[in-house]
Amino acid sequence: MNFANRVYNFSAGPSTLPLPVLEEAAKDMLNHKGSGMSVMEMSHRSKAFQDIKDETERDLRELMKIPETYKVLFLQGGAYLQFAMVPINLLRNSKKADYIVTGNWAKNAAKEAAKIGEVNIVASSEDKTFTYIPLEESYREKLDREADYLHLTYNNTIFGTRFTALPEAGKVPIVADLSSCILSQEFDVNDFGLIYAGAQKNIGPAGLTIVIVKEDLLGFAPENTPSMLNYKTLSDADSMFNTPPCYSIYMAGLTFKWLKGLGGVKAMEEQNVAKAKLLYDAIDSSKLFSCPVAEKDRSIMNPVFVTGKEDWDKEFVKGAAEEGLVNLAGHRMIGGMRASIYNAMPIEGVEALVDYMRKFEKSRTI
Amino acid sequence: MNFANRVYNFSAGPSTLPLPVLEEAAKDMLNHKGSGMSVMEMSHRSKAFQDIKDETERDLRELMKIPETYKVLFLQGGAYLQFAMVPINLLRNSKKADYIVTGNWAKNAAKEAAKIGEVNIVASSEDKTFTYIPLEESYREKLDREADYLHLTYNNTIFGTRFTALPEAGKVPIVADLSSCILSQEFDVNDFGLIYAGAQKNIGPAGLTIVIVKEDLLGFAPENTPSMLNYKTLSDADSMFNTPPCYSIYMAGLTFKWLKGLGGVKAMEEQNVAKAKLLYDAIDSSKLFSCPVAEKDRSIMNPVFVTGKEDWDKEFVKGAAEEGLVNLAGHRMIGGMRASIYNAMPIEGVEALVDYMRKFEKSRTI
Repeated sequence: MNFANRVYNFSAGPSTLPLPVLEEAAKDMLNHKGSGMSVMEMSHRSKAFQDIKDETERDLRELMKIPETYKVLFLQGGAYLQFAMVPINLLRNSKKADYIVTGNWAKNAAKEAAKIGEVNIVASSEDKTFTYIPLEESYREKLDREADYLHLTYNNTIFGTRFTALPEAGKVPIVADLSSCILSQEFDVNDFGLIYAGAQKNIGPAGLTIVIVKEDLLGFAPENTPSMLNYKTLSDADSMFNTPPCYSIYMAGLTFKWLKGLGGVKAMEEQNVAKAKLLYDAIDSSKLFSCPVAEKDRSIMNPVFVTGKEDWDKEFVKGAAEEGLVNLAGHRMIGGMRASIYNAMPIEGVEALVDYMRKFEKSRTI
Repeated sequence: MNFANRVYNFSAGPSTLPLPVLEEAAKDMLNHKGSGMSVMEMSHRSKAFQDIKDETERDLRELMKIPETYKVLFLQGGAYLQFAMVPINLLRNSKKADYIVTGNWAKNAAKEAAKIGEVNIVASSEDKTFTYIPLEESYREKLDREADYLHLTYNNTIFGTRFTALPEAGKVPIVADLSSCILSQEFDVNDFGLIYAGAQKNIGPAGLTIVIVKEDLLGFAPENTPSMLNYKTLSDADSMFNTPPCYSIYMAGLTFKWLKGLGGVKAMEEQNVAKAKLLYDAIDSSKLFSCPVAEKDRSIMNPVFVTGKEDWDKEFVKGAAEEGLVNLAGHRMIGGMRASIYNAMPIEGVEALVDYMRKFEKSRTI
């Protein structure tokens, strides 16, 4: 247990938020900066809210070094709605897209896109329950140089894998789901045509989706596209085409400020790498625990591990919760354990987890 | 000014929330009921959050007496996304729908639907800048008995009008946008095929949209409909097809509890009628202010009024703000003044507004 009887929350999303962010939100709830109202009560057209939104965007642009040629959109509907919006908006020439399928969300993204255009699965790791990222050599020749885009899920929340480099896609824009790794490590936005991410892991509360899109990809959606699914419409209105999820934008802004205060994405990445190393070292040096993921492809956000016995996995999760280490059960698709250690998880949380792992291992080997 | 230096906020949406609701949210921010975490940090699959969601739905069902044959959905995207989802899902037989156009949002709803099927505008009050609701006699014969639904916007937020009765639609399901009047007065849900409402007026923060739909209307969306736009998919997953806007659902739940504590919708309606009467009486008895809306069609949520001089309107809005009565400017489409007096606006706020109106009038007539 840590401050204010708070637990260490290893949930995969929605997930733990920085304590100072929550404290400021609580303090601010009845009266934001002398406005006499909560941010929740502000007209989205008011100067007070416009300032919040502008500053949030400015801070995100600074943190990710987003070039001027990219638009930042604050949307709703989660990554799942992006699975449809991406093909609706970006299937503009050949109407074909390539998908690399490295997990459940990537698979669903491909499924949604197949309702709209021609989808080619150029690579998949489903043969080994998504425990690895396919080598680029294995699919390089399958990449369609006429594809309207190449889609991938950079970090796979359920299976605990991540890409460590982007494939060479030439002129084909890369579209990436960064839901579970945005702001956790440095990315060069120029490498992407479009990035999308649900907020509920590294950014803020669920209900906000961030899209970062190269401006020259906008404006190609079919005419009968619902306005709310048309990036161009939303972008032209600066994400204020209708009422945006104002409070979630405000919370995202607080998180961005917190991240800037810690030294930005590079500093955060160093911390994240250290946290992941601590945990993977504990797993690898243990005789009880093991990680099913290929070492080169291990996620620094969602390490997964097992004891090898289903009963013990359950006992581990239950016992950990009793010590204030909660939400360590793996996704219902694969079981085992998963420790989501997003930006807001302090290293003390990982240390406490590693301590508990040692204790648990001891109790099973005596 | 009232408690905690809060203002009386007459914003049309996002809008004022009940003070006890905000106080509870603030108190609860770091640690919800001993869970050791904020509601924002809870996995949507956790029991703690499931309980919150179930209770929120139960309370809404109780407040609105929603029959078992209707599904309640907690969605994202605002009413604007519903403008598209309604025709995508409900244009199932004739592929035709009737629309009554009584304001800007009704007009936009019709426009979005026209991208998807055949839309017939059976009545419109645009000829008089939407200052009235068309008499049913004027369009009764135009109603298409083969239409898949009849759409109307019950309360018109911008123009300050509302329906006082539903048209006789026979077997054609009525679809109503209740964004700015849900829970403000009693409705018989049985009169509707589908109700939708953005939360940011009478329910909670922006980013949550509530849909109440008769179960037998579900399941007719075309096969290639994006999952996130398919009511059946969302309903089958109990609004948990993907991560819902958890915190907004929690806030809605707090508002529902508050409303139940006040005696429910009937008691609230009485208060709302009294608040509106106080304001309209002040307008009608004034020599300076007037309301452009036909008396029979006046909204009890969004009364609009003018002085007749644009300069004075602006001075009124500015002077009111200095006294802690904020966001009284009319919508940018029509100017003048608008006092949105949703459920959470206490009668003291309306009294303060009426006092200020008298003071302002005196200052202009000496």
